[in-house]
Amino acid sequence: MLSASPKKQKREDSDVNSCMVHLSNPYLDGLKDDILYHFDLGTRSHDLPAMFGDVKFVCVGGSPWRMKGFTQYIAGELGIGDPNADYPNICAGTDRYCMYKVGSVLSVSHGMGIPSIAIMLHELIKLLYHAKCSDVTIIRIGTSGGIGLQPGTVVVTKQSVDPKFKAQFEQIILGESVFRHTDLDEELAEELLHCSKELNEFETVIGKTMCTLDFYEGQARLDGAFCSYTPDQKFNYLRKAYDAGVRNIEMESSVFASMCKMGGIKAAVVCVTLLNRLEGDQITSSHDVLTEYQLRPQKLVGYFIKKQLKKSSQ
Amino acid sequence: MLSASPKKQKREDSDVNSCMVHLSNPYLDGLKDDILYHFDLGTRSHDLPAMFGDVKFVCVGGSPWRMKGFTQYIAGELGIGDPNADYPNICAGTDRYCMYKVGSVLSVSHGMGIPSIAIMLHELIKLLYHAKCSDVTIIRIGTSGGIGLQPGTVVVTKQSVDPKFKAQFEQIILGESVFRHTDLDEELAEELLHCSKELNEFETVIGKTMCTLDFYEGQARLDGAFCSYTPDQKFNYLRKAYDAGVRNIEMESSVFASMCKMGGIKAAVVCVTLLNRLEGDQITSSHDVLTEYQLRPQKLVGYFIKKQLKKSSQ
Repeated sequence: MLSASPKKQKREDSDVNSCMVHLSNPYLDGLKDDILYHFDLGTRSHDLPAMFGDVKFVCVGGSPWRMKGFTQYIAGELGIGDPNADYPNICAGTDRYCMYKVGSVLSVSHGMGIPSIAIMLHELIKLLYHAKCSDVTIIRIGTSGGIGLQPGTVVVTKQSVDPKFKAQFEQIILGESVFRHTDLDEELAEELLHCSKELNEFETVIGKTMCTLDFYEGQARLDGAFCSYTPDQKFNYLRKAYDAGVRNIEMESSVFASMCKMGGIKAAVVCVTLLNRLEGDQITSSHDVLTEYQLRPQKLVGYFIKKQLKKSSQ
Repeated sequence: MLSASPKKQKREDSDVNSCMVHLSNPYLDGLKDDILYHFDLGTRSHDLPAMFGDVKFVCVGGSPWRMKGFTQYIAGELGIGDPNADYPNICAGTDRYCMYKVGSVLSVSHGMGIPSIAIMLHELIKLLYHAKCSDVTIIRIGTSGGIGLQPGTVVVTKQSVDPKFKAQFEQIILGESVFRHTDLDEELAEELLHCSKELNEFETVIGKTMCTLDFYEGQARLDGAFCSYTPDQKFNYLRKAYDAGVRNIEMESSVFASMCKMGGIKAAVVCVTLLNRLEGDQITSSHDVLTEYQLRPQKLVGYFIKKQLKKSSQ
């Protein structure tokens, strides 16, 4: 097992306090052209500082449709664009991710699961670095399965834990396991909770989020193609998760927390719970109810961004 | 660590010899409605046997655009549809995956990484089961990084290995690790190699495929946002992979191999290599060259399907 030396750890921590997005890669500056392959963007083909230099908020989510919807919503909320306009997809040259920008807010889709969001985050962090962005806040808005919560409750993640309830993200490098921190920014989480109270439209809690590599067997569902455990074993596992402080389960928060921390970017995870996993596995709520639930994280984050921009203009 | 009991293992092996797609889940038959949430399909809302009962070949790939392109290509090749027609996306109600069907050939996109393809495969295997499909062959057509091969070479996977070169897929169930087989169908791989020789348009090899959870640090790239190893360490790691029989690296083959085997479906992985990782990390070939490379797996699989259909109609 590799681990960061104390000296290196110290350097990483102090970097986090600086306001510029930063990389930990000595080889990038030697590249004549850095191709952000999965965005179909690059340092030679695009003027990244001109395109993205003013970005202060990045919102990411699994679904491309939802991220386009978020851009329209935030344009209307901030009064800087038509909420019914058809915002162009900056990554139109690829079908891997979608990206939209309105004012200082960038929205990017990341697909499902740790590997998919990790590719996106490597290229996003490089993009923000090349664009010389500073004081960036990044928030993942998503959906999740809740544990012991009313469906529709929003969870702001305090810390992401693995399926054994450990607060770590395992990255395999050159065939060796490296374990990284998965804490999210505490102050930002508290501010989001405070915003939800001011907004007063739905329940929001701060809790731990379990991040899994699978939606079915990995989350103890009984309705996958394969299931080797009993309903009792499932219930006991989820109950243990609840006792360990887990309030929801999704599939991206651990690598998101660890990579944003390494890039010196303040980060939060805001997910709505679509069901209470202690009561079932299938997502059976009506389309309209689910649509309304899915708007909750974007409403909360929209309120937060509006408030922050108001503060900074005072 | 959990492991299958000898009895259970035996049952699983004998299931593989039957020609029906099968599940290993005693709880599914009790469901009144099985909602395939990420496909926006279900057993109550859709007549799955009528929609999919005739499916014999399933081709899956990361990119939705490529899977649509494959459907158009195969329609033309088999002479059963217009290659320029705009085939409807069967999963149009969601933006998670795309699905197209022409004749007995189903095409489905799976996004990037093990978790994303695993969700798709759980729902696909349930779909094929509910539709009472039999004698199904499933082939993943994709892109990959090659090791020690000319860019553009096609690799048919013999066995998928993890980043430590072990032929296993680790699935975490109720917080415990379960290790599953990652062999692909040998006869099918040989038949695909034979098809490539008949087609005689590009080089094809059979080899091991390394499956990683990350595209940058996980594949020893020097051009991610973070890099903690030297070019020499990278080269040594890739060299070791080559010596272990690895000819290409991608991000889905291990769970694909293990789940298809469990579902009793003959499976193959056919990926083109976009670059030789012993020589570089960035994908710098021109757009036209890459587009031609990406057509190779679909050409090979198209040829194979055409040949199989000809055989079965004789």
